[in-house]
Amino acid sequence: MTTSREVRLKSRPEGMPQPENFEIASVQLPDPGAGEVQVRNLFMSVDPYMRGRMYDRPSYVPPFQIGEPLQGGAVGEVVASNDPSLKAGDIVQSMLGWREAFNAPAAAVQKLDTHGLPPQAFLGIAGMPGMTAYVGLLKIAALKEGDVVFVSAAAGAVGSVVCQIAKLKGHTVIGSAGGDEKTAFLREIGVDHVIDYKATPDLTKALAEVAPKGIDVYFENVGGEHLEAALNAARPFARFALCGMISQYNATEPPVGPSNIMLAVGKRIRMEGFIVSDHFAMLPEFLRDVSQWIGSGQLKWRETVDEGIDAAPGAFLKLFKGENIGKMLVKLG
Amino acid sequence: MTTSREVRLKSRPEGMPQPENFEIASVQLPDPGAGEVQVRNLFMSVDPYMRGRMYDRPSYVPPFQIGEPLQGGAVGEVVASNDPSLKAGDIVQSMLGWREAFNAPAAAVQKLDTHGLPPQAFLGIAGMPGMTAYVGLLKIAALKEGDVVFVSAAAGAVGSVVCQIAKLKGHTVIGSAGGDEKTAFLREIGVDHVIDYKATPDLTKALAEVAPKGIDVYFENVGGEHLEAALNAARPFARFALCGMISQYNATEPPVGPSNIMLAVGKRIRMEGFIVSDHFAMLPEFLRDVSQWIGSGQLKWRETVDEGIDAAPGAFLKLFKGENIGKMLVKLG
Repeated sequence: MTTSREVRLKSRPEGMPQPENFEIASVQLPDPGAGEVQVRNLFMSVDPYMRGRMYDRPSYVPPFQIGEPLQGGAVGEVVASNDPSLKAGDIVQSMLGWREAFNAPAAAVQKLDTHGLPPQAFLGIAGMPGMTAYVGLLKIAALKEGDVVFVSAAAGAVGSVVCQIAKLKGHTVIGSAGGDEKTAFLREIGVDHVIDYKATPDLTKALAEVAPKGIDVYFENVGGEHLEAALNAARPFARFALCGMISQYNATEPPVGPSNIMLAVGKRIRMEGFIVSDHFAMLPEFLRDVSQWIGSGQLKWRETVDEGIDAAPGAFLKLFKGENIGKMLVKLG
Repeated sequence: MTTSREVRLKSRPEGMPQPENFEIASVQLPDPGAGEVQVRNLFMSVDPYMRGRMYDRPSYVPPFQIGEPLQGGAVGEVVASNDPSLKAGDIVQSMLGWREAFNAPAAAVQKLDTHGLPPQAFLGIAGMPGMTAYVGLLKIAALKEGDVVFVSAAAGAVGSVVCQIAKLKGHTVIGSAGGDEKTAFLREIGVDHVIDYKATPDLTKALAEVAPKGIDVYFENVGGEHLEAALNAARPFARFALCGMISQYNATEPPVGPSNIMLAVGKRIRMEGFIVSDHFAMLPEFLRDVSQWIGSGQLKWRETVDEGIDAAPGAFLKLFKGENIGKMLVKLG
C-alpha cells in the first residue's frame, strides 16, 4: 500500500475558477494487479483546454465529473510493474495527471524515449502544446513563403513554439503578450515585433504600425480584441488557425464577438478551428522536426513550475491570470 | 447621336441608401468609333455587393466615384457596330449596366450564346449569382455526402440556387427567409425545412428543432443572428461558406459580432470568405452543370423585375428591405 494525493473537481466553476472548486484527497494504492503498473508522477501538465471540461456540456472531450479526480497530461516513473512490457524505473507518459501516483493497465501509459530531453519537455515543446503549434501553423494555417505571422498569447506554451517555428522558416513574426517579462522573452526568441497588449490601447493600430502591409497568418489563442485586430490587419486570403480563445473561457455573459467579421468575406479569409488530437498522423514528422530544431538550438522553451500537488489548482488559475511564461507545470516527483 | 440616361452616385450613403444618393442624368452618345460598339441594355443586374463599392475604402473592387455612373452587370443588344467581331442584333453581356445605352470597345463586352435561355438568366441563375452559389457550395463549403445544409437569404438570387443544387445532390436543406411569399417559394423549390426568420424569436432554437443532429454546411448571406445560430447548430468539422452578410452592409455603428465564435475551435469549424471572381476557372463546369440542371427541370428561378432606368435606385433599395424574391433586375430594353 502506498498513499497518493489527487485533485478532484469539487464544484463546477462559474466564471473564473476559484480554489474552492477543487479539493485534495488522499487515496491508498494497493500493489498493481496483473497487467498493471504503479506510476509516481514526476510532472503534471496544466492546460487551458481543461477549463472546457469543467463545464457540463457535450464537447470533443467528455466533461469532468464532480468528486472525481481531474485528468491531464503527466510524465512519471514506473515504481512497480506487474506487466512484462514495463519495468520499475521506466519513464512513462499518460493522461493520468492531477495525482501523485496511480495504478493503471500498462496499456494506459506510453513508455517515453526522451531522446536526451528532460521528461517534462514531452508535456510542452515536444508534446501536445508543441505539436499544437506545429499542426496549427503548418497544416491549418498552411504557412507559405513570405507570410507575415501574428501570434496571440505568444509567450505561452503553444504561442512561443509558433513564433519560433515561423522564425526558423524565415518569416516575419509579430507576437502579442502581456507585461515586461513576457515581452522580453519574445525578444529573446527572436520575435520581430512584440506587442504588449496590456500597454496597448488600440491593438488594431499597434498591428498596423508593425505590419503596415498586413498579416497573412493569425494564430489565435486569445479571442476578443485580438481577433478583431487580426481581421482588420488581414491581407486578402489570410488564414487564421483558431487554437483557443482563452479570454472567453471564463465568461459568465456571452462575450462580445468580432464586430468586423464581415471583413472575412471581401478579404477571403479562412478561419479554421482545430484540435491537435485530430492530427496525430503528423506525430512522426513533428517529432523528427522538433528534435532537430531543439538539437540545432533553433527551438528554445520556458517552463513555469509550481511544486507539489497542493499547488495544482493555483497553477491552473495562473493560466487565466496570464501568470505563466511558456509551459505551466506542477512538479510532483 | 442617341440619348441615354444613366444612374450616377450623387453622394455616399450613410447607413441605408436613400433615393437622394442617386441621380439620373442624360448623356448623348455619338456613333461608335473605330473598334467600338453601341449597345442598348435590355436588363441590368442589381446586386447587394454594390453597396460595398459605395464606401470610399480599399476593397477587392475599387469604390464608385461621386458623379460617375454606377456599374453593374447587364445584358444588351448591339445596335451599331464598328468592329468586325460583333454585329447589330448580337446579344452581349457587360459590366456597363446602370445606363440605357453605351459605346464601348468591342472587347469590353462579351457576346452571349444564350443556349435558348432568356438573356437576363445570365445575370442570375446562369450568371454571377448562380456561379456564386455553385462555387460557394461545392468548392468553398466542399459539400459532401450526407451533409445537412443551412442557407440564409435562401430566397435570394444566390441562396435559392444553393438550396436547389444541394437538393438535387440529395441533401437535407434548411432555408431561412422572411415572409410568407418567400417561404412559399422555398417550399416550391423543395427546401426541406423552411424558417421564416421574421416570425422566429430564436433562430438557434428553430434550427435545433428542424436539424436536431446539427448542420454540416452553412451558406452565409446574412450575418448577425444567422451566423450565431449556425455556429450553435454546427456539427464537428462544419464548413461555412461566407458569401455575404447583408444585415451589416448599411451599419452605421460596429455591428454585434457572433458571441459564440469560440465554438469554432472545439467544433473545428472552417469559415471561409470567398468572391466568385477568384474562381472563374470553374466557369465551364458551372455552365455545363447549370444548363443540364435547367434542361432537366431540376433548377428553377425567380426574378423580381422593375421597369425603366428611373426604377434602378429603388430596385437597389429593395435588396436591403428584403423586397426581392430571386434575382433583382431592372428591365431597360
